[in-house]
Amino acid sequence: MSRNVEIVKNKHVLLKNYIDGSPKVSDFIISTETTIKLEVPEGSNGVLLKNLYLSCDAYLCFLMRGPQSSSLSGSFRGFTPGAPIGGSGVSEVVDSKNPNFKKGDFVWGETLWEEYTFVSQPRSHFKIDVHKDIPLSYYTGILGKSGLSAYGGFYEICNPKEGEKVFVSAASGAVGQLVGQFAKLAGCYVVGSAGSDKKVDLLKNELGFDDAFNYKEEQDLDATLKRYFPNGIDIDFENVGGKTLDAVLPNMKMHGRISVCGMISQYNIQKQDPLHNIKWVLFKRLKMEGWSVIDYFPIYPKFLEFILPYVLERKIKYVEDIVEGLENGPAAFSGIYTGLNFGKQVVKVFHD
Amino acid sequence: MSRNVEIVKNKHVLLKNYIDGSPKVSDFIISTETTIKLEVPEGSNGVLLKNLYLSCDAYLCFLMRGPQSSSLSGSFRGFTPGAPIGGSGVSEVVDSKNPNFKKGDFVWGETLWEEYTFVSQPRSHFKIDVHKDIPLSYYTGILGKSGLSAYGGFYEICNPKEGEKVFVSAASGAVGQLVGQFAKLAGCYVVGSAGSDKKVDLLKNELGFDDAFNYKEEQDLDATLKRYFPNGIDIDFENVGGKTLDAVLPNMKMHGRISVCGMISQYNIQKQDPLHNIKWVLFKRLKMEGWSVIDYFPIYPKFLEFILPYVLERKIKYVEDIVEGLENGPAAFSGIYTGLNFGKQVVKVFHD
Repeated sequence: MSRNVEIVKNKHVLLKNYIDGSPKVSDFIISTETTIKLEVPEGSNGVLLKNLYLSCDAYLCFLMRGPQSSSLSGSFRGFTPGAPIGGSGVSEVVDSKNPNFKKGDFVWGETLWEEYTFVSQPRSHFKIDVHKDIPLSYYTGILGKSGLSAYGGFYEICNPKEGEKVFVSAASGAVGQLVGQFAKLAGCYVVGSAGSDKKVDLLKNELGFDDAFNYKEEQDLDATLKRYFPNGIDIDFENVGGKTLDAVLPNMKMHGRISVCGMISQYNIQKQDPLHNIKWVLFKRLKMEGWSVIDYFPIYPKFLEFILPYVLERKIKYVEDIVEGLENGPAAFSGIYTGLNFGKQVVKVFHD
Repeated sequence: MSRNVEIVKNKHVLLKNYIDGSPKVSDFIISTETTIKLEVPEGSNGVLLKNLYLSCDAYLCFLMRGPQSSSLSGSFRGFTPGAPIGGSGVSEVVDSKNPNFKKGDFVWGETLWEEYTFVSQPRSHFKIDVHKDIPLSYYTGILGKSGLSAYGGFYEICNPKEGEKVFVSAASGAVGQLVGQFAKLAGCYVVGSAGSDKKVDLLKNELGFDDAFNYKEEQDLDATLKRYFPNGIDIDFENVGGKTLDAVLPNMKMHGRISVCGMISQYNIQKQDPLHNIKWVLFKRLKMEGWSVIDYFPIYPKFLEFILPYVLERKIKYVEDIVEGLENGPAAFSGIYTGLNFGKQVVKVFHD
């Protein structure tokens, strides 16, 4: 039995060279030179994916630094110059020889930045229960790693209690915007920081933060935090690190919790900002904890059960910044390190 | 009904002035000018204590800095120039109008650095179950706050598992020497650092540490830790802070735990040592937690039940450095900041 199988061009985003400093558009190449047969090879139990949405995540820069400099080695595999970069994405199954997936399924999980990807071992992929009121792109964000990060990093690490004071840095970002809304659900008071007045407006007037400020307009972050938290911070959801974390530490309350989701200000600089206030971990008996979303994959079903009703009832909002066309991916990705994105940065692979 | 009540001279250690930098002998005054009536006043439900042993604890320096500079405000009350300093001690009840204590009882808890102390509200005092094989001085250390610190800070914070690698700084000190022994009981591999060859010898040959080093002889602490922990550290019991903590961070293993018991290297300097390696909290998904022994008072009975059999069977050893005479207290206390003590520093109030 034979059948005609389509062979198509496959556009990719390739890493041009190991990066040094912040990722730039010129660190990537858009290639359209290869073709792919839309069929899983005989003898494989893989899947062939048509990629629809790709997630721009800050940690990806670590995988572009070469084999020696990957600080996340052990968790993720680094990228190689000349080969496609990868990350979390939403895809349609075009062909499958895997018993867990069939043609026409939609999945989210690890994929490559290209139009079609053959995945030989689809182990870190979740099947999407498609719902007409839920955009598929949400599975790169609120219903994917970003949402799970906000959920695990806030509820599991911070153990929030009603009335507690919460600070979220990079608060309009993929994870921060959810942490603020989770904090409100938990009965907390929440203040966010962001890098533009438009983002501050979003936080205060759309996402329900009690207050927010534009950190670029503040001269003295310690004084700023004292203004918003005169009695101190119970929970810091840390996305920024560096000077932000250093200003947070002396403003923490006794037995405060610092959930270290990211330190984006420190990712692309040669010399880390020195921290001067670590002593407050002792004096205020703080818990500071780093984690990876990988740690929370086992609770993904529990998370989904929690979040879906809120999404369907529009009780939790999610702001996405979707750029169309794989060829526009490098600019969108590079932009997240300077805050060019407005909400979760997503790349829609195909044009409508 | 009346009785003759003894009136005695009462020697004190007074704070002479708020301190600046490390405590020095000249920051204290030995006073023998006052007398005390060895009787609890009518209408009080306090106790009159004869102090036997006083504990030299590193945190006391914070209470000598004046009302503005006490970093521990909220936990402890600062000392006042001209008044006695205080801390944890072992005392005999000389008179009591409190239903929980009677004349002749031995207690440990907060007292003042003087021969006799009237405590109007003996709320933070534990009655000692006197045992012929247990020195009373142990209740300033292994059976008091130091032991409870080691127990809570190691078991509650670090959740040690068999085979894990443990690093203890200031390892021959009041708390460190116990953490090392607890680590061995838990089946861990434990390396300690200390400030003299004699202390290193104690750790390796008396207290059962797997290895130990003299940090004063090491040029590059990062390289030192890599030598002793080629595959990384699971648990860091932090007593020193500053450069020690900064060297520990990049040497931690994934999901490592850092229990912050103290940062003695940072207590008496104007400018804190900057920390350059905090990013490893994120990349290695570390938990770093500060705490106070106060947090563990509720589990003191459980701790005592755990530790007493080991003490009686000599399966856990405890090294004390006991100086005799209240008048020698200031020198003994000041010495702990430069590591002059060999083991737990105790002041025996009265001469034999």
